Amino acid sequence: MPVDEPTEVEFRSDVTVELVKHAASDADVIWAARVSTAGEKSLEEIRKDPERSKGLINYLMRDRHGSPFEHSSMTFYVHAPIFVFREFMRHRTFSFNEESGRYRKLRPVFYVPGPERKLVQVGKPGKYEFVDGTPEQHKLVTEATQEAYRQAYRAYLDMLDAGIAREVARTVLPVGMYSSMYATCNARSLMHFLSLRTRRDDARFPSFPQREIEMVAEKMEALWAELMPLTHEAFNAHGRVSP
Amino acid sequence: MPVDEPTEVEFRSDVTVELVKHAASDADVIWAARVSTAGEKSLEEIRKDPERSKGLINYLMRDRHGSPFEHSSMTFYVHAPIFVFREFMRHRTFSFNEESGRYRKLRPVFYVPGPERKLVQVGKPGKYEFVDGTPEQHKLVTEATQEAYRQAYRAYLDMLDAGIAREVARTVLPVGMYSSMYATCNARSLMHFLSLRTRRDDARFPSFPQREIEMVAEKMEALWAELMPLTHEAFNAHGRVSP
Amino acid sequence: MPVDEPTEVEFRSDVTVELVKHAASDADVIWAARVSTAGEKSLEEIRKDPERSKGLINYLMRDRHGSPFEHSSMTFYVHAPIFVFREFMRHRTFSFNEESGRYRKLRPVFYVPGPERKLVQVGKPGKYEFVDGTPEQHKLVTEATQEAYRQAYRAYLDMLDAGIAREVARTVLPVGMYSSMYATCNARSLMHFLSLRTRRDDARFPSFPQREIEMVAEKMEALWAELMPLTHEAFNAHGRVSP
Amino acid sequence: MPVDEPTEVEFRSDVTVELVKHAASDADVIWAARVSTAGEKSLEEIRKDPERSKGLINYLMRDRHGSPFEHSSMTFYVHAPIFVFREFMRHRTFSFNEESGRYRKLRPVFYVPGPERKLVQVGKPGKYEFVDGTPEQHKLVTEATQEAYRQAYRAYLDMLDAGIAREVARTVLPVGMYSSMYATCNARSLMHFLSLRTRRDDARFPSFPQREIEMVAEKMEALWAELMPLTHEAFNAHGRVSP
Repeated sequence: MPVDEPTEVEFRSDVTVELVKHAASDADVIWAARVSTAGEKSLEEIRKDPERSKGLINYLMRDRHGSPFEHSSMTFYVHAPIFVFREFMRHRTFSFNEESGRYRKLRPVFYVPGPERKLVQVGKPGKYEFVDGTPEQHKLVTEATQEAYRQAYRAYLDMLDAGIAREVARTVLPVGMYSSMYATCNARSLMHFLSLRTRRDDARFPSFPQREIEMVAEKMEALWAELMPLTHEAFNAHGRVSP
Repeated sequence: MPVDEPTEVEFRSDVTVELVKHAASDADVIWAARVSTAGEKSLEEIRKDPERSKGLINYLMRDRHGSPFEHSSMTFYVHAPIFVFREFMRHRTFSFNEESGRYRKLRPVFYVPGPERKLVQVGKPGKYEFVDGTPEQHKLVTEATQEAYRQAYRAYLDMLDAGIAREVARTVLPVGMYSSMYATCNARSLMHFLSLRTRRDDARFPSFPQREIEMVAEKMEALWAELMPLTHEAFNAHGRVSP
Repeated sequence: MPVDEPTEVEFRSDVTVELVKHAASDADVIWAARVSTAGEKSLEEIRKDPERSKGLINYLMRDRHGSPFEHSSMTFYVHAPIFVFREFMRHRTFSFNEESGRYRKLRPVFYVPGPERKLVQVGKPGKYEFVDGTPEQHKLVTEATQEAYRQAYRAYLDMLDAGIAREVARTVLPVGMYSSMYATCNARSLMHFLSLRTRRDDARFPSFPQREIEMVAEKMEALWAELMPLTHEAFNAHGRVSP
Repeated sequence: MPVDEPTEVEFRSDVTVELVKHAASDADVIWAARVSTAGEKSLEEIRKDPERSKGLINYLMRDRHGSPFEHSSMTFYVHAPIFVFREFMRHRTFSFNEESGRYRKLRPVFYVPGPERKLVQVGKPGKYEFVDGTPEQHKLVTEATQEAYRQAYRAYLDMLDAGIAREVARTVLPVGMYSSMYATCNARSLMHFLSLRTRRDDARFPSFPQREIEMVAEKMEALWAELMPLTHEAFNAHGRVSP
């Protein structure tokens, strides 16, 4: 198989999240909850009485009535390093389809921590803190990662050039390589994801995700907050603790 | 609590299924699959090449690539007897919100088998067949169920009238009482449901659901087939066997 | 089909839970967590250092590292009314096998609230309180439920006697009828179940389950606490809030 | 943090699977199924009538009564390359705990395809076949992978030596690096996994897993077959197609 595509290696420090499609609104929560209680209201009625809707959503969140938050659907397209996807795919209530190294030649895009990434870890397991790296440390990381990525990708291309199957050749590719996937979830699953993958400095309910997956989570949260503002507000009010 | 609502008892022999909302199309399957393989196509391109889409969907179904069928969402409103919901809720990939006997007074709507319901079971466990009942048997079933339902609902009302909590009083209500729920699923979950809840006289892959849940399944299938005709066709072509 | 089995109707006010089999211990949590961190320890080493194990389990619980609690398995045999099972089966991480009204004639055992069951509900939705019923109310409930159950079961037998299929005849049976099932779960799923199905008078994290499912939950919790005492202690320490 | 541990790089071509603990037997299936039907039998009775047990298990498998196969639990310890774990973790009914690159320094063990690994892929997507590589191709793969692994691990160590956090430094590590995990599942989940991750040259129900995950699947299957021989036999008889 001739390797005639451009192989210019690209380095990035960011992640990308797009909302591809969705069927998600605060009204979905209200409808679903109303079937349990006093009878269905039309969408118009719900819109006329936003304060009552707000109160109901808050009540559902606080009392952990989780199921009304499930009748919604959001599909995100995520472009991020493999090590982020490795953590992401531990969330078993999501649906995933990821770019396949078996079916296509993977593109040379790699993650290099940006200048704002805290590079140094202090403290003990369970109480880690991250602090800024020195300029020398940043320089080392940039050079070491870029050089390693280039060598790995070269080995990959060499094997492809020699006719080796993609699924074999990819074995040398690093977890800092970017991949892309569609991830579909409902609001309840998303809240659970956000509760674990955004940082929370709370003595009782702490949360210390790796920064790179938090970058993805923050973008997902911003997109979701626009779709379901009352639900997002209730999620914040109840501490992101027990969705 | 005064019981001033109408308490006219209603008997039905049918089930109701409405598609409340959806984000589901064959194109969702194509998109999701393409991320794994040759790159994304725009929706326009996909529509221009329906034969290729059909082939891809067939291939995914046959080779049991299930995940591309998950990036879709359908919410159904179902009105059916409790014994149907009891089977329905064994499907753990669905999201459910059902009318609650704790939060509201339940309405007196009850299931009576219609004239086309085969009433008599012959054969051994695992090889049951159902055959028509005699007119006498139909008469008996109609009378026995209606009388039992009326007595049960009267006992329910008596307890409510005496100030007993709804969640206690409901204990006398029969599984033939109608309830309503929202059920949300994706196409993969729906196919799994249909594969188990529609009848299949196939020596290798038989399926013998209770007729009443099959009535719900048939209505769900008809609604879904309109949304995702290529996927539905592929589902049929591969025998409804192993989604 | 001759109905020659005894049909003496039985009334009960309790629920039964047996631990049928299990593979569950605090050591399972430690093992699973250690693979993430410093290397595996033998079971002997773990037993020699109980304080450290306790600390690790507490840390995992507090920081919501849920996965180490999943490598355990408990199978319970539960005998309780159908309306309890209806709530129970909403927990989609459990595995269930329940007695089938399609495959066997159901036994006439029915739930009648005992004298300690609070019968009267006061307050608004979301803020319900239950208070004792009067002796008259208890008398009414006992009589009304028993009579309704007897009538329903008689109608069931009449239909069976007339040759009607079990799956049809059962439609008159009430949700207060007892059923039995095997329910299998891991410790994480069980904690989630307990967090929702045991009462918690906590302004921030309230929980108001129906008393009858709480009776099942309490028995499950007692059995589990013996198997995994450190995990149970950590579950209590962190408020049963966010497992 | 001083890096004083041995850093001798190790290359392997195999995978390791151990059965760490289990609560799984054919009798579990029988028990669970019997609760649905004719009443429970004691374990002794079940053992006395192996032919009937065999028949029941076959019937359950053929008719896709999946739930009785869920009341079992097996925990495997798996040592395999990351790219295998990436596929493995798509199976959302399993429970996983994997070695963490955030909490520990990862050991330099890497996957190099062995002489029996077919290296060359021919045919079109969906109809791939793998054929033997030439000696030159094997030599190239061995050298290219080993060199790439060494360079990547050196970059990792350099960053650790410079005080960079493990979770950052690991970004250069390749997906061919070995990791270890505990994976817990029940028999139904395992059968689903095996149906997708073992090869099946069947025109109607084909399956073409990557060889490396199939190596893991084969070892899991062998361990499971000893625990549940009747279930394994039924799984084979019904074509591994639709568990």
